Amino acid sequence: MVIMGYFEQLKRKQVEKCSLLCAGIDIDLEKIPACFTGSSRFVNFGDTFIRAVAPYVPVVKINLAFSEAEGMFPEVNEFVHKARSLGLLVIIDAKRGDIGNSSAKYAQYVFDRLGADATTVSPYMGSDSVEPFLEYADKGVYVLCRTSNGGAKDFQSLEVVRPAMLGGTAPLYQVVAETAARQWNGRGNCGLVVGATAPEELGQVLKATDYMPLLVPGVGAQGGDVKAVVSRLGRSTSMINQSRSLMLPPGSAGAESPEEYAEIVAAAAKKAVEEINSCR
Amino acid sequence: MVIMGYFEQLKRKQVEKCSLLCAGIDIDLEKIPACFTGSSRFVNFGDTFIRAVAPYVPVVKINLAFSEAEGMFPEVNEFVHKARSLGLLVIIDAKRGDIGNSSAKYAQYVFDRLGADATTVSPYMGSDSVEPFLEYADKGVYVLCRTSNGGAKDFQSLEVVRPAMLGGTAPLYQVVAETAARQWNGRGNCGLVVGATAPEELGQVLKATDYMPLLVPGVGAQGGDVKAVVSRLGRSTSMINQSRSLMLPPGSAGAESPEEYAEIVAAAAKKAVEEINSCR
Repeated sequence: MVIMGYFEQLKRKQVEKCSLLCAGIDIDLEKIPACFTGSSRFVNFGDTFIRAVAPYVPVVKINLAFSEAEGMFPEVNEFVHKARSLGLLVIIDAKRGDIGNSSAKYAQYVFDRLGADATTVSPYMGSDSVEPFLEYADKGVYVLCRTSNGGAKDFQSLEVVRPAMLGGTAPLYQVVAETAARQWNGRGNCGLVVGATAPEELGQVLKATDYMPLLVPGVGAQGGDVKAVVSRLGRSTSMINQSRSLMLPPGSAGAESPEEYAEIVAAAAKKAVEEINSCR
Repeated sequence: MVIMGYFEQLKRKQVEKCSLLCAGIDIDLEKIPACFTGSSRFVNFGDTFIRAVAPYVPVVKINLAFSEAEGMFPEVNEFVHKARSLGLLVIIDAKRGDIGNSSAKYAQYVFDRLGADATTVSPYMGSDSVEPFLEYADKGVYVLCRTSNGGAKDFQSLEVVRPAMLGGTAPLYQVVAETAARQWNGRGNCGLVVGATAPEELGQVLKATDYMPLLVPGVGAQGGDVKAVVSRLGRSTSMINQSRSLMLPPGSAGAESPEEYAEIVAAAAKKAVEEINSCR
């Protein structure tokens, strides 16, 4: 049996659904619409959201920060099962990274225990901290490169002296991108996280890496420009993530039932896909 | 009531116990001594270890990678309670870091839900990713700086052009250290992770930061030199972590009972403290 790698699966699903959108699941219990009640509202809200966006996205991204803050652990497994049963790929957004034997355990957690198709990792600790994730050859590994937040400039944008074989200087995020492209992508399962809030840097990263796949957060609540991003993606198997703007679109807080909430979310997802496609 | 900050508490406990040792809890189920059996062996092993080291250390460090890989979540809370009931401080080694609203959730997880006294964070995403942790003013926040693993050289050791106010160039780890010292330590609750495998870099970091508190892994299984580290610590409220070499010291695999295992661990901890103190 030939196992299809994550990025090949993603490419096919993106073509099938004609969608580059990724729906991010960040469940803040304090912000869940009032129509979700009772002790199971975390799961019910997440399930409703996943069903609502499923026709419009190839992939969902679950941010572990939110489930951990609420002590919701089995619930993440439920979301993964729900999403996969609807034919979606699942990214676990964990941003982990540690010395080799610890990173191996984190990889075991996200891929074996949670059953993710892909995850996000931090590059700060270098090759041996990323390698245990990459060893899962059929899984996708998105390395943080140029992130969408204001603090990205503190270190990622500093000009660094590049490794000898490359020469010259470049911003740290570009050295991370080049390292990922040249040293970490031997199995073809490595991607990069580059924020929509920095479209020029995004373009540079794509060119420097021969169009590695990007996970692009920062559109929606963070204010990134869809057109500036999409026009640069070229032939890369990239995707644009939206979390808050899809989970809590205008009008959703006042939804009178989960069904009405689902309709509002589906409409927001459909609109987001159309907006992205209008820029392709 | 005056709440004593983490580093002040740590300093007092280090003096009381005459110990700079931190005992790291990395429970690999496959390596637990055979005398621990049954479905509760993860917890029993951890509990036994904490009781055995308690007389010799002011603080324990729990690495979440290992508990997450086994799906052991309530068990971490049990370890925290056990350690605190024995008068120990608890570091949750999580190495998290994300955009602000997500980092706030991770901070909530480690400090509010797990009840940690301190945690480790990754600096790659910059100030706004670290700030939500620092806002817990009575908690300690150790920022990854120059880590103990081989891959630390990939990015941390690259020479970077420093921010304008500092001028010149310096290795990335030093810029991270300087940023932590100048911008992130306003509440006096910030420390740094610097590996024992790089004692010269450790000395540079201490001098550049006016002796900020360090968490120093890399002694023991990773081969760092105790004397080279301890001789450089000066007046900083630093500590040396040992995980594998304390949890699984020579002879522990063949222990015939948890009591015998505890004796072997206690002897190893006592010896480690004496070795560190002989270099002070």
